[in-house]
Amino acid sequence: MQPQEPVIGILGGMGPAATADFYTKLVRHTRAHRDQDHPRTVIWSDPTIPDRTDALLGLGEDPTPWMLRGLKHLEEVGATLIAVPCNTAHAFVPELQAHTGVPILHMIEETVALLAASGVTTAGLLATTGTCRTELYQGSAQRWGLTVQVPGHEAQQKVMDAIQQIKGGRPSVAAAALVQAAQELQAQGAQAVIAGCTEIPLALSEEMLQVRLVDPTAVLAEAALRRAGFALSGAESPVGAVPS
Amino acid sequence: MQPQEPVIGILGGMGPAATADFYTKLVRHTRAHRDQDHPRTVIWSDPTIPDRTDALLGLGEDPTPWMLRGLKHLEEVGATLIAVPCNTAHAFVPELQAHTGVPILHMIEETVALLAASGVTTAGLLATTGTCRTELYQGSAQRWGLTVQVPGHEAQQKVMDAIQQIKGGRPSVAAAALVQAAQELQAQGAQAVIAGCTEIPLALSEEMLQVRLVDPTAVLAEAALRRAGFALSGAESPVGAVPS
Repeated sequence: MQPQEPVIGILGGMGPAATADFYTKLVRHTRAHRDQDHPRTVIWSDPTIPDRTDALLGLGEDPTPWMLRGLKHLEEVGATLIAVPCNTAHAFVPELQAHTGVPILHMIEETVALLAASGVTTAGLLATTGTCRTELYQGSAQRWGLTVQVPGHEAQQKVMDAIQQIKGGRPSVAAAALVQAAQELQAQGAQAVIAGCTEIPLALSEEMLQVRLVDPTAVLAEAALRRAGFALSGAESPVGAVPS
Repeated sequence: MQPQEPVIGILGGMGPAATADFYTKLVRHTRAHRDQDHPRTVIWSDPTIPDRTDALLGLGEDPTPWMLRGLKHLEEVGATLIAVPCNTAHAFVPELQAHTGVPILHMIEETVALLAASGVTTAGLLATTGTCRTELYQGSAQRWGLTVQVPGHEAQQKVMDAIQQIKGGRPSVAAAALVQAAQELQAQGAQAVIAGCTEIPLALSEEMLQVRLVDPTAVLAEAALRRAGFALSGAESPVGAVPS
């Protein structure tokens, strides 16, 4: 029997630039010499999905129906596994998974497992207030024996503002606040900082920091490629380089 | 009556990095302050579509059935207009359009029309041998009163090799040959050079040249946004800057 042809499904648009970044990383992390070495991919990018953090804080509409619609479309065209390049959306992943037989990769679980395997015991988290409050990373970290530190109230507000600035197309304005928050987390003992919102790698790169920066977007790209049976290119490590 | 909600469909994977580049430009060229200002987009990226140039030169399989399959998927999930970010694939667009009621934008026609409107009368073409041989740009140019110059036989072979190098993940190796071919076209009177394969903007930028570089990927992104009713951000002009 022919094994099922893999089609990587991407439930995206949260936000659209982060989806473009994820697909770019998916392509770059594939070992390929020509077009035909790459996986088939289908992307449903719906930027009209209501804001995830607003919903989690009880301030906005539930995005689940929008995400279920996207999931249905990905299924219709034959996706065999699904990636959701939005950290905050992972608060809704158990509900989405209950509606489909197609496996949904878990970006946060993959990231924390990789961090644990690389010897990190304390990681700092830069993420939306929704991701921090729902303890998505903290819960996963507990299972893997890691400690996750989050910014204080004021610093977190600045991180959230920076994420909105990136979504508004102003990544350079956002960088300073993210660098400062990362430094504070490092001063509190973080051996690595997680870019725990898919907008953050669009503004913040490891060269700006004295601490290892972990990119869950790249972790998810590599996880999707491995699960779909594609070889990795050996592009830059998603868990960052140990600073010299 | 509610107007039909626009969904931009992208028939991609030819190659996958060019599709990622197109989607990145679609996002960047949208005037937006938050996620919800962006259009819904669905991308079917099938890198297994047989090589377009090989087919046009009678050396490989006809890619039409693969493209029709993608088109069907884009229709199934509600695409209201379709963009095909591959110049060479436009040789097959009339056949694709005959199979669907959803309008397919014509990247080449859009690019030539924009060049004509910007006052260019002679343009050089860097493209696949398939795109050159089928005279996709030349035919369009004739309708708009433009002259299109293509590289000589040897230079064209080097351009085709460069395109394969970009597809193999080595854009920096490809740049020198593309710069040289662009210089030769300029010496022959080209007032602008068309980056007429969607791989080329991944290796060649206007800063490397003394001549205006036209990016059909960006032209297509802006055309798609306009047709879908979205405002443009005013990002860099797709027809390049007049060199100072």
